[in-house]
Amino acid sequence: MENHLKIIKGNMVFAPSFGQLETLANSYVIIEGKKIKGTYRELPAQYNNLAITDYGDALIIPGFVDLHFHAPQFANRGLGLDLELLPWLEQYTFPEEAKFKDNAYAAEIYKQVVTELWKWGTTRVALFGTIHKEATAHLMEMLALAGLGGYVGKVNMDRNSSDSLLETTEQSLADTEDFIKNTIDRYGLVKPIITPRFVPSCTGDLMSGLARLAGKYNLPVQSHLSENTGEIAWVKELHPDCLNYANVYQKFGLFGQQPTIMAHCIYNDAAEIELMAKNKVTVAHCPYSNNNLASGIAPVRKLIDLGVAVGLGSDIAGGHEISIAKVMAAAVQVSKLKWLASDKKAPFFTIPEVFFMATKGGGSFFGKVGSFEEGYEFDALVIDDTGLNVSTINRYSLAERLSRFIYIGDYHNIVARYVAGKKMEQPQF
Amino acid sequence: MENHLKIIKGNMVFAPSFGQLETLANSYVIIEGKKIKGTYRELPAQYNNLAITDYGDALIIPGFVDLHFHAPQFANRGLGLDLELLPWLEQYTFPEEAKFKDNAYAAEIYKQVVTELWKWGTTRVALFGTIHKEATAHLMEMLALAGLGGYVGKVNMDRNSSDSLLETTEQSLADTEDFIKNTIDRYGLVKPIITPRFVPSCTGDLMSGLARLAGKYNLPVQSHLSENTGEIAWVKELHPDCLNYANVYQKFGLFGQQPTIMAHCIYNDAAEIELMAKNKVTVAHCPYSNNNLASGIAPVRKLIDLGVAVGLGSDIAGGHEISIAKVMAAAVQVSKLKWLASDKKAPFFTIPEVFFMATKGGGSFFGKVGSFEEGYEFDALVIDDTGLNVSTINRYSLAERLSRFIYIGDYHNIVARYVAGKKMEQPQF
Repeated sequence: MENHLKIIKGNMVFAPSFGQLETLANSYVIIEGKKIKGTYRELPAQYNNLAITDYGDALIIPGFVDLHFHAPQFANRGLGLDLELLPWLEQYTFPEEAKFKDNAYAAEIYKQVVTELWKWGTTRVALFGTIHKEATAHLMEMLALAGLGGYVGKVNMDRNSSDSLLETTEQSLADTEDFIKNTIDRYGLVKPIITPRFVPSCTGDLMSGLARLAGKYNLPVQSHLSENTGEIAWVKELHPDCLNYANVYQKFGLFGQQPTIMAHCIYNDAAEIELMAKNKVTVAHCPYSNNNLASGIAPVRKLIDLGVAVGLGSDIAGGHEISIAKVMAAAVQVSKLKWLASDKKAPFFTIPEVFFMATKGGGSFFGKVGSFEEGYEFDALVIDDTGLNVSTINRYSLAERLSRFIYIGDYHNIVARYVAGKKMEQPQF
Repeated sequence: MENHLKIIKGNMVFAPSFGQLETLANSYVIIEGKKIKGTYRELPAQYNNLAITDYGDALIIPGFVDLHFHAPQFANRGLGLDLELLPWLEQYTFPEEAKFKDNAYAAEIYKQVVTELWKWGTTRVALFGTIHKEATAHLMEMLALAGLGGYVGKVNMDRNSSDSLLETTEQSLADTEDFIKNTIDRYGLVKPIITPRFVPSCTGDLMSGLARLAGKYNLPVQSHLSENTGEIAWVKELHPDCLNYANVYQKFGLFGQQPTIMAHCIYNDAAEIELMAKNKVTVAHCPYSNNNLASGIAPVRKLIDLGVAVGLGSDIAGGHEISIAKVMAAAVQVSKLKWLASDKKAPFFTIPEVFFMATKGGGSFFGKVGSFEEGYEFDALVIDDTGLNVSTINRYSLAERLSRFIYIGDYHNIVARYVAGKKMEQPQF
């Protein structure tokens, strides 16, 4: 009768709301298909005859969500980090992305990207590809084969790019529509996303065309916003008629008309933040990238206080860490520097707060994802932290164990991964 | 005749001065006993009949130097990082350190500390123990058994400590002298160091007594300076007669009268910095700890410009990362935020600059350590970065390979470790 149900036992730790940490020691989660039917401290009697997957004293936490990751920049991690955004794009990023015209090279890199995402416990991800529709479709296929969930975008660039990455407006739109048609109904958990690189590399015509495609196919949008002061000045030059950077996207229909992720958002003014909140734009906060490219510290506490949804992003390869656990630690760290810079007025983030961003905060972009509440898709990581417990006498609370895993754990501690109710084995490409 | 010589071949990368990166592809280093006789791009004819240890295409870099590490806080990594320094000491650090009265507990933790140092490629380290002379002597013995080099200090605290960690002035000095006598001639590469915790936990009498011991036994000194604004205000209250925090140490003879490491140095004024330079005080820059405890960003560029020597410190467990490679990346990152905060006036650090701090910068505290120049003790890590080269077509320079190892490598990439000419196998305790 109920043998389509799964029962998993362990120490559940999750964040149902910003700042709230729910811990259920030695508890049960009942999964029906993709979704959670309920969590229970005592197993209800009607499930007594079902098999239980018992993870013993392990922690079970929601899978990590990465809202911003440039898959083709994977090989560039740790390179060129003595530069700011714009010269870094010219000297390192664009030459690497140009290689993805070659499908064989793309396959070689992308299989590693997907394997690393699996390895570090990212279960949902918003990926930038390159301008190349074939290579980007291949990336989607690999992500789907691995059983991970996500959005993948063919990047659009019809101005201010390197020669080898420049599209005409028409070709860019035509390739994007081809890409969408080929992929939109192909995979259960992996979908296309409209991906103008950023304002400086997209003409108004291209942005308008992409907004039409987003509406026509009911697709979400991802791009970059206010990462670097040089970039912002450039946008101002390119669009002197627009009040601010956000207004350029807004003018062309790419700012929340469909669900939208904007990465970085370091330097937005009050009017932009108000618009982000009103249009329900989700911010991808990428602290490692913002450190590495000397971009600055995003005012995330302020964004959240003003009603903007925030998730975390690795921003490979501005960021070098694929691990969203490490990104969480970095988010706490930069928030402490922000707290100091604010004369201790903007409270720094706690672990429950960044844990929310890394799970339900970003996960909400994918539906009911990132929590262990009823009706949520069961994305989970099973954390065996035995190796982190360095003494035989110290005992830690579940919250402390989560904190220690975030700061000092790594992929060795992740012993099982679930996405939408299904256990994911290591991808075999 | 010359069979006491060792020849090692590989790609040498080292930093002979701040900002200078020396790369010697496919080159040879000749080691005589502990020391480097020379590095050569072509092997001189007189060595032709000697065996060569050939590390192929691996990188060979100086071993990492960690100038600040609290060994007894190892189990506390990743805990309590929602607090600032003073409450964190009270709530987490002191209770953990009190456990080291128990030698069995100390042995259990310290064997892991030494193994982790080995694992992450730290070849020389300045360690804080606890107030307990026996446990701290045991830590020295383990470090020596593992073949690592370093200074280890019995901590002194005769005021403002928890009850279980409070010493009388007399007992503190007597135990310190016992500790010194028992250990000073016992090990080749591991020596005692005078370790007043910090001004708030040491009376003037204790500090004076420790200065006498430092002089009597010709020992170096390590402590903390200007980590947190609350701490600084407290020092001002305790010593209203002193001009500033540095002057308290200076008054009691603990500020460069013997070679001295001061950890943190975030908030020093111009007079203090001048005194540090004049007295040749070495700063242990601990960026992860300074982030985690919301202490601030040390003005390291300014310190260096004003002639102060700077090395890096993990500051376990204010810092959570034992890897000095990760600490290097953090030092670059916070320097970029400092650059932004200085209106882009204080240039951020480059990889060659932090690589110098992590090797010769800190290494100079231990003698001729941290470089591959003639006469330097041969401390080295052999880095196999094959696994980091994610594509078959990308080729990287030696400098780029170093950068990629620092940002995205880990202990798996360290395939051999040498300390003072001797290859170190994994410690077996």
